Amino acid sequence: MEKTQITASVCTIGDEILIGQIVDTNSSAIATALNEIGVKVRRMISIADDREQILTSLENELKDNEIVIVTGGLGPTDDDITKPALAELCGCSTYRTDVRQLDVVKSILHSRGLDLLDVNIAQAKVPEACEVIVNRKGTAPIMVFPFGKERYGHQARLYSMPGVPFETLAALPEVMEDIKAHFECGTITHRTVMTFGMAESALSKRIAVWEHSLPDGVHLAYLPNTLTGVRLRLSKFGGEQGENEALLEGLFAELKSELGELVYADSDSNLQTEIGRLLSAHQLKLSAAESCTGGMISHLITSVPGSSAYYLGSVTSYASEIKEKLLGVPKELIEKYTVVSPECAAAMAEGVRRLTGSDYSIATTGNAGPTASEGQQVGLVWVAASSSKGTQTKSFYYRNDRKRNIERFSAAALHFLLTKIKSEVK
Amino acid sequence: MEKTQITASVCTIGDEILIGQIVDTNSSAIATALNEIGVKVRRMISIADDREQILTSLENELKDNEIVIVTGGLGPTDDDITKPALAELCGCSTYRTDVRQLDVVKSILHSRGLDLLDVNIAQAKVPEACEVIVNRKGTAPIMVFPFGKERYGHQARLYSMPGVPFETLAALPEVMEDIKAHFECGTITHRTVMTFGMAESALSKRIAVWEHSLPDGVHLAYLPNTLTGVRLRLSKFGGEQGENEALLEGLFAELKSELGELVYADSDSNLQTEIGRLLSAHQLKLSAAESCTGGMISHLITSVPGSSAYYLGSVTSYASEIKEKLLGVPKELIEKYTVVSPECAAAMAEGVRRLTGSDYSIATTGNAGPTASEGQQVGLVWVAASSSKGTQTKSFYYRNDRKRNIERFSAAALHFLLTKIKSEVK
Repeated sequence: MEKTQITASVCTIGDEILIGQIVDTNSSAIATALNEIGVKVRRMISIADDREQILTSLENELKDNEIVIVTGGLGPTDDDITKPALAELCGCSTYRTDVRQLDVVKSILHSRGLDLLDVNIAQAKVPEACEVIVNRKGTAPIMVFPFGKERYGHQARLYSMPGVPFETLAALPEVMEDIKAHFECGTITHRTVMTFGMAESALSKRIAVWEHSLPDGVHLAYLPNTLTGVRLRLSKFGGEQGENEALLEGLFAELKSELGELVYADSDSNLQTEIGRLLSAHQLKLSAAESCTGGMISHLITSVPGSSAYYLGSVTSYASEIKEKLLGVPKELIEKYTVVSPECAAAMAEGVRRLTGSDYSIATTGNAGPTASEGQQVGLVWVAASSSKGTQTKSFYYRNDRKRNIERFSAAALHFLLTKIKSEVK
Repeated sequence: MEKTQITASVCTIGDEILIGQIVDTNSSAIATALNEIGVKVRRMISIADDREQILTSLENELKDNEIVIVTGGLGPTDDDITKPALAELCGCSTYRTDVRQLDVVKSILHSRGLDLLDVNIAQAKVPEACEVIVNRKGTAPIMVFPFGKERYGHQARLYSMPGVPFETLAALPEVMEDIKAHFECGTITHRTVMTFGMAESALSKRIAVWEHSLPDGVHLAYLPNTLTGVRLRLSKFGGEQGENEALLEGLFAELKSELGELVYADSDSNLQTEIGRLLSAHQLKLSAAESCTGGMISHLITSVPGSSAYYLGSVTSYASEIKEKLLGVPKELIEKYTVVSPECAAAMAEGVRRLTGSDYSIATTGNAGPTASEGQQVGLVWVAASSSKGTQTKSFYYRNDRKRNIERFSAAALHFLLTKIKSEVK
């Protein structure tokens, strides 16, 4: 039997978002978590730290949705607006101190060597009408306000979470458990495949015929990301979980065959994680030599927990003399071919592999902009990947700003390396 | 004379935001730009690619605001919903092809070696009722829908922009010019100071007395960021520009004196930019040796345009043997003190300075987690900064996840280096 679709609204409170000083990453994390438990996010809103706006907006969202998740407005330096507004919303005028949260407040301040201030104690105070989910990573508790059917025509729960992304992320699993305990959520089944090397519009053209033949209720989402390539996600909403999984299994195999060589992972992943997985499995070591990417590749590789098992290190040879002195790139080679050349990239990759004794290495040399140096084209990068089986080079050209060029150079290099490793360890 | 406050609503359209797969960075960039021209953002909303929701929500936002900026829903693979919905909203059923935008479409596809598809041509088609601001970075034009006073009781303009952040950013200046040409915007005056080393709540306690004495209409915002420290922004809304600047000038001097040694820049900046500024001014060179930060410090330094003028490069010595082999850290030193020690950090900093011949160097060694290795504490980092005047070390301890620990380690190291350079080049 099809269950009714439970919907949610995600609301952020705080002037800092409206003046554009903070990018709201909480809403996206919350939406992902809700989606995974089968709750559909109908709307997201950001409003000011203003009593009237808070009351009007939350009232509206509660009318349309069973679940409303609010973040922000609870920090120690925030004006005292959000908590009293929430108390007013549920018609509660008395407060209690949550002792479990107060313990966390004390322990956090103690570990930081700070005194317990009145503003800190005040954070553990909550309206009597709310239930509390303890915030273990911060001082402001998660407050849960339940509303009966008589008020909005449906049962509803409002969750008030702190605005600090780190704290919100840590508390999300408990909030999702609470939602599942109070509502019959629908089913959503997903299958994700990672692709690299083709833009969204070209991809969509390539698989257009197949995509148009998808059965009702199945949706394909294109999720492009500079560092990971385009993620494609097949989703089936509603229905029976087991049947959905079998249906998606078949469609997913078709999708992968349509995409062919563009696929680099058949679950949610990224290039550096896949590289790490292969190197670990074959007990191989990696090193890097970076010029224009300036440390970004090394940063991406070491962002993977456990990367010290296969990553030895890197040389960022930003200046030409470092390419010569540390990596042993011959001065004559640079004079003959310039630093942005396949010859220089190859010499850098071989140099760092020799220097560190790694099995594989990756190197980049190019110009990310904004200004052209030594007559080199802005946006051009030469990449080299090296192993005992040989060294290959490839160039890429992008027309973005410095920040984005560095990201695209790094991703292209990682994909080039992953492809080489895959072809050699088979 | 005080002008009426013009307000705006920023709306994103697209399921990918509501399912949490994309973090909305456009809204923040748009809000910043609006704020700078004196337009107050009243609300931000994210809604689904759904005709009904688009019509209802935009109608609502136009009732409350003179300016509504919509992003998203216009990509080549988007379902054909947003553009017809906008046409319906302004009661227009005929379309025209914008030839200037079509030229851009052709030239972009040509430069990428792609064929001109029907879906690409369709992007240059717009409802007759709208004005067009050409999107020079992408294929979908910016559509401007004007509404007369008779409809909402006030003049209003709706701007529909593409969802791609790179394209939105590039088109923002022209959109802001258009807004200024059609509305008498208010005044907003800001002064910003950058601090590092004290958390938001402690900062607010330190300057509480001064902050409470701020005159009416002046607001202080705390804007914490892991990589840059807490940014403090004084704002004055409304009134006469010249008077506001004089008023803020005095208050800003007071604020800086309250903050003392915590201040590292007196305009919007970051640590790596300030380091670059000092090194450039004194023609000094920098290098880095990174262990637990894995390339992040080098990435931050090279994210500054022109950093090749003062940055020579770095060694990421992720494995112990690289610390010994490349940086010359004695094996005995590591055996005696372990890799996470002030001795090892200092030897790394001195090693990379010797190796590269730089005037200054920065080094990090620690454990970002998630698992403790060699009995070392997760979250502990030793930092060393070295120059011909000596080498100093300092430890920092954070209790965050791997990603955030790497960021905090890197920022702490950059601040430690900046402080040393400042004290020595004076």
